[in-house]
Amino acid sequence: METSTALLTDQYELTMLQAALRAGTAERRAVFEVFARSLPAGRRYGVVAGTGRLLDAIADFRFGTDELDFLTGNGIVDEPTAKWLSSYRFTGDVYGYPEGECYFPNSPILSVEGTFAEAVLLETVALSILNYDSAIASAASRMAVAAGNRPLIEMGSRRTHERAAVSAARAAHIAGFATTSNLAAGRAYGVPTGGTAAHAFTMLHDSERHAFEAQLASLGDATTLLVDTYDVERAVKTAVELAGPALGAVRIDSGDLGDLARRVRAQLDALGARETRIIVTGDLDEHGIAALAAAPVDGYGVGTSLVTGSGAPTASLVYKLVARADRPGPDAPLRPVAKRSTGKPTIGGRKRALRRLDVHGVACAEVVTVGEPAPGVRDRLLQVPLVRGGEIVGREPLTAARARHRAVVAELPPQARQLSRGEPALPTEIVADGPQGA
Amino acid sequence: METSTALLTDQYELTMLQAALRAGTAERRAVFEVFARSLPAGRRYGVVAGTGRLLDAIADFRFGTDELDFLTGNGIVDEPTAKWLSSYRFTGDVYGYPEGECYFPNSPILSVEGTFAEAVLLETVALSILNYDSAIASAASRMAVAAGNRPLIEMGSRRTHERAAVSAARAAHIAGFATTSNLAAGRAYGVPTGGTAAHAFTMLHDSERHAFEAQLASLGDATTLLVDTYDVERAVKTAVELAGPALGAVRIDSGDLGDLARRVRAQLDALGARETRIIVTGDLDEHGIAALAAAPVDGYGVGTSLVTGSGAPTASLVYKLVARADRPGPDAPLRPVAKRSTGKPTIGGRKRALRRLDVHGVACAEVVTVGEPAPGVRDRLLQVPLVRGGEIVGREPLTAARARHRAVVAELPPQARQLSRGEPALPTEIVADGPQGA
Repeated sequence: METSTALLTDQYELTMLQAALRAGTAERRAVFEVFARSLPAGRRYGVVAGTGRLLDAIADFRFGTDELDFLTGNGIVDEPTAKWLSSYRFTGDVYGYPEGECYFPNSPILSVEGTFAEAVLLETVALSILNYDSAIASAASRMAVAAGNRPLIEMGSRRTHERAAVSAARAAHIAGFATTSNLAAGRAYGVPTGGTAAHAFTMLHDSERHAFEAQLASLGDATTLLVDTYDVERAVKTAVELAGPALGAVRIDSGDLGDLARRVRAQLDALGARETRIIVTGDLDEHGIAALAAAPVDGYGVGTSLVTGSGAPTASLVYKLVARADRPGPDAPLRPVAKRSTGKPTIGGRKRALRRLDVHGVACAEVVTVGEPAPGVRDRLLQVPLVRGGEIVGREPLTAARARHRAVVAELPPQARQLSRGEPALPTEIVADGPQGA
Repeated sequence: METSTALLTDQYELTMLQAALRAGTAERRAVFEVFARSLPAGRRYGVVAGTGRLLDAIADFRFGTDELDFLTGNGIVDEPTAKWLSSYRFTGDVYGYPEGECYFPNSPILSVEGTFAEAVLLETVALSILNYDSAIASAASRMAVAAGNRPLIEMGSRRTHERAAVSAARAAHIAGFATTSNLAAGRAYGVPTGGTAAHAFTMLHDSERHAFEAQLASLGDATTLLVDTYDVERAVKTAVELAGPALGAVRIDSGDLGDLARRVRAQLDALGARETRIIVTGDLDEHGIAALAAAPVDGYGVGTSLVTGSGAPTASLVYKLVARADRPGPDAPLRPVAKRSTGKPTIGGRKRALRRLDVHGVACAEVVTVGEPAPGVRDRLLQVPLVRGGEIVGREPLTAARARHRAVVAELPPQARQLSRGEPALPTEIVADGPQGA
């Protein structure tokens, strides 16, 4: 696949660029902001993910010969525009919520500042990355809340686009999943990988016993044997006969998972395999996980519902111009701009944001200020520098995002961690001239 | 991005391979089939897409030094398995439904035949591609039915993963969309691209008039002007003042689209711009499109609902072992295998499929035979060769898939084209020993 991300772009970004270049408005300074008008129905918080990938995409956003030949050959841009694109490199500033941070309606999770020309071009790729990854992380976080201390295994690659699958594994790991089945995510991002065998492996062999023997010989007794290909009880019996009490785990992928887990736990215990864990998989979502809280389950594998955002496959983030200068040049003052489209109005002006905590350290409001905020002692500023003067400064290890997410969710009020449909867990207060004192 | 597709794979494919190599079962001949147990709730047919992309992915499924270093360095496979992988190349046969064809529950849309080792490795990438692309094509086809002869513009890139967006544009084009906003889809697949301007362009300029002037100067009078940034009526007036009756189109992106389209049509006509078209966009899905059938609309732009499969973001296709030999070697006979997992049973044996047509040329059944079928005179065989002995033979231009889809949908009974929730439009008849005569 191509390295450049420059054509992961809607055509109108380029036609706008061309028209603005011709009109002399392309070099006006501009501020674009990414935010969600609302959370998906019933969700109590959203989770930012994809920022690290976006920084890579910005670094790779270059128009080489291949890209330019396509654009000019198809009459999409004229020669002066192609020439401008040939030296394109984002030279502005980006700041935003770091990965793993939670967000609420109107949280300014990303701000892109530069000339209109350089900033408008990033709209599509920024939204694609943040919308998908944040949708997955937002769903994953709810599953992690439901799972409590039991590990979650991401195994949804097969149910989404093959490249989206890699990003989904990354986003899920940020939001609390322990491991992924996706090897490319292991290589690209260091997400821990796992996996043992499918039903096909059992059916390949002349008997389930033969299959289990083959797996144990190759992967050792600590492996996980899949026990629901034919008859669960018989399979568990065979598994313990072959591996003894050292058997790592059994996996159940179908049927009434809670009932089966109880039966299998009793059977394993009776056979002396008290340390053998029970992993359940099969069309689980956060509600299915929560329903198994009282069952003797040691880990959950989640596929379809994770990679499709559990009912909310996009975060519905938008990228809107909120301020721009009246003339070209770095010194021209910015003025707020806003559209008035029915149902889709925007709030003009560059925003900052902070999370307000109460005296107990519990988050109580998302405060979005038009202009610079005056944070109180318990307010936490939410935006961090990501790109400064075109230089990427916001890279961090995935472990940092993962730790941040755990801390941020713990800081939210208890109702944030309810799975039932509800209102956003924090009110978003939009303040035109700095926040009220905390 | 890396060219190899080999790590777009669940880890268990490789651990199964390793165990089978050690057990001497890896070289048993095997048949895997891809099918859906059911259609998404209420859907009347599914649309196959992604096959062409899958053929590319199979060609690129190679384990190079980077891939092997990752796998051995992380203890995922042992040295003998890595050595086997280093010369991996799929040498078997693949046949399946061609792109654009419709499918129903249990339609065998893809069959992969080879050794267990070579065929099991393709599970994840095959499902990822077919599940995503077919989900998009299935949603797109309903939108195309709803739109009738009015063109559909795909503009959902920003609401899904940046690489998925490219595939979504391709799948939508197969299923009837005219154009896409996605430039990478234009370059990679030749999907016609389009796009003019966003609200940001209007807001960049000192007035809407200034913005329209800039756009017309750059893109010509045949362009599409976006008229809902501030006040639609005033914008339409300005647009026609500037461009005259040659104005190509106006776009409305918010509000009550039907009501606005009627008002704008009347206004345009009164201003003499009778040929100026009206394009509507903004959270449309197939139902929103259908609701505008009587409105004076000349084209629809569809984003979020398209790239998220309009409520069904995955096709839920599975990849199941249905037959395998008892011993290694090309001459060992295949025997059917099936699992009995609760709620997820499979039907053993290699399947063929045909669409049965009635005397009027209307499809009346999806006939799936275990073993070779005996087609009647009005039966259409559904599977085509895609890979023969490792050589890709099933590539075709996107235009062929697009034409096929149009013909296949026209052949379905009328209830298939209803948008309301219903049963699959054709019954799937599974026949163990060839179809009954037609």
